[in-house]
Amino acid sequence: MQGEILFLCVTVFTAGFAIAIGVIFPALGQGKACSKALEGIARQPEATGPISRTLFVGLALLESLAIYVLVVSLILLFANPLLKYVFK
Amino acid sequence: MQGEILFLCVTVFTAGFAIAIGVIFPALGQGKACSKALEGIARQPEATGPISRTLFVGLALLESLAIYVLVVSLILLFANPLLKYVFK
Amino acid sequence: MQGEILFLCVTVFTAGFAIAIGVIFPALGQGKACSKALEGIARQPEATGPISRTLFVGLALLESLAIYVLVVSLILLFANPLLKYVFK
Repeated sequence: MQGEILFLCVTVFTAGFAIAIGVIFPALGQGKACSKALEGIARQPEATGPISRTLFVGLALLESLAIYVLVVSLILLFANPLLKYVFK
Repeated sequence: MQGEILFLCVTVFTAGFAIAIGVIFPALGQGKACSKALEGIARQPEATGPISRTLFVGLALLESLAIYVLVVSLILLFANPLLKYVFK
Repeated sequence: MQGEILFLCVTVFTAGFAIAIGVIFPALGQGKACSKALEGIARQPEATGPISRTLFVGLALLESLAIYVLVVSLILLFANPLLKYVFK
């Protein structure tokens, strides 16, 4: 039974820490992009339109990186295809 | 029984530290975005409208990153799909 | 049985942490590219068109780097070609 428990422990640990580590740098990137956009709007309020549009595209792509990690975490927890080899 | 206890220990450890690590960088990002917005509003009070709108979108996306980690933590604690393999 | 369990543990650990680490630098790159584009648009709003087009190409290529890691993670989980050697 110990081997199966080890597999489940590794799965839980990986799912949790993967998403925790996976949001670190998208968060830094979004914070940086957002702060630059706010600086730009404060300097040139008439450029709000193009700045916002560019910012939203960047934020969406950074968000997608975090979602990839979330998808892998949830697959590990809910649809782990390797479980059937452990618990035959 | 020791294996089952180990699994529960790993689950608790992961749920706690995942959310603790997962909020670090969204918090830094939100703090940076917010401080830049306040600088901008202080420099150009007439640009408050566009600055606030841009800030709120950025804060919402950074918040969503932390919520992903929270979701995984709560799943680990309340709806852990692996528990049924440990306690058959 | 212990060897097979070890193989599955390593697979899960690798799939999770690979995607978590793999989004780090695409996220930093996208954040940097995005913030420079926003700076540029704020300085010269009339250059929005070329700046946006260049930014989108850069963001798409950075996104593709993260997608490579996602593909390898999903292959490890769902179509691991080494499993047939472990479970003959």
